[in-house]
Amino acid sequence: MTIQKIQTLHNVFGRDRAVADETRRLLKASGVVAVNMISGPGAGKTALLEASAAELDKALCFAVLEGDIATTKDAQRIARLGVPVIQLLTDGACHLDAPLIYEALKKLDLSSLDLLFIENVGNLVCPANFDLGEDVRVALLSVTEGDDKPLKYPLLFQKADLIVLSKIDLLAHTDFRIDAVVAHMRRLNPSAPIIELSARTGQGIGQWIDWLKQRVHCSGSSEPALA
Amino acid sequence: MTIQKIQTLHNVFGRDRAVADETRRLLKASGVVAVNMISGPGAGKTALLEASAAELDKALCFAVLEGDIATTKDAQRIARLGVPVIQLLTDGACHLDAPLIYEALKKLDLSSLDLLFIENVGNLVCPANFDLGEDVRVALLSVTEGDDKPLKYPLLFQKADLIVLSKIDLLAHTDFRIDAVVAHMRRLNPSAPIIELSARTGQGIGQWIDWLKQRVHCSGSSEPALA
Repeated sequence: MTIQKIQTLHNVFGRDRAVADETRRLLKASGVVAVNMISGPGAGKTALLEASAAELDKALCFAVLEGDIATTKDAQRIARLGVPVIQLLTDGACHLDAPLIYEALKKLDLSSLDLLFIENVGNLVCPANFDLGEDVRVALLSVTEGDDKPLKYPLLFQKADLIVLSKIDLLAHTDFRIDAVVAHMRRLNPSAPIIELSARTGQGIGQWIDWLKQRVHCSGSSEPALA
Repeated sequence: MTIQKIQTLHNVFGRDRAVADETRRLLKASGVVAVNMISGPGAGKTALLEASAAELDKALCFAVLEGDIATTKDAQRIARLGVPVIQLLTDGACHLDAPLIYEALKKLDLSSLDLLFIENVGNLVCPANFDLGEDVRVALLSVTEGDDKPLKYPLLFQKADLIVLSKIDLLAHTDFRIDAVVAHMRRLNPSAPIIELSARTGQGIGQWIDWLKQRVHCSGSSEPALA
């Protein structure tokens, strides 16, 4: 699998909203659900994709856009799984933007896909401010980062459609209190489900995949939902 | 200890360099060494200050500027130790800036201090671009974040005067390879020392404190270094 690279375009704020809307229109027309994955550095976005790829592959066709400031390391990890992947290098910028995603779509055969993962730059702050044209936004928080993060970085958690508590296998070695995070989350964002998950042990991966399948099945296909 | 808050000023890029230089001048005139601490969210900046406060207190007088997007949680943790602390709220911004630090200095009695810790917003990307007027820059990377981070977020690690590998007590539960990080670091930044450290077990805290003492003793006091 060749890793394609796209260098970042200059982010023109005024234009980005229109570009995100156009991305959403293109994806919807092709029946592709786009998932914007956001977390701090090293919370396990790539590891989650690695751990779920084989099982997902049985049910859905998917590709990955890998956002990074430097290196193609994550894209190489995804390519090894035989999954189509495009590397998006931001050239120092701290988040992906809508034009970068829109350019990447031109390199994908959208008609062959059900699901498009967009792995954002590892950053709990800036990516939360940028609409990429995604359908859903997933916030990952590893238990090693501490249970105060939803309160300290509220925007991402407020806007998320799903919260993944990752590295749950390390829970016993930390002071992380799941009940505290759930309580904070319920104030910030009452409706987003919270999945406890470990890419290492496989715990929660089934729930994650079921949630993704549900998003694909409930997304706007061209068929009416009711006959 | 009352926690003082300063809301962020609008960051005017052109002005920031001059403000950072003025901060540096003020600190030097008072013999205060300022340490800009940068890491991703939850790498343990506050925990490191908590773990070293009692021992540091025996040798040096210090204060803390706590940068956060929201909440005064970290400042409350520092205040509990009896350490002077000022909360800097960035109001959504992803990094501290020079004017915010300069304003905070006016609320400190610099003549009573040896050391000023500036705990930046948890973010491996943006804070690396901003000179706050500090003397030294410390990059923290927790072993749970993965050993690929210096290559993926090179700017911070290139510009750091010290690298702290934190949460070293969790090393056995991760795939983190210290030799890989050391090799990467030696290419990015050959001179910065690397301290392996755990705020939980106390491992490495002595080395960290020795490094800080060295910085204070070697900084430009008004006395000549040689008689």
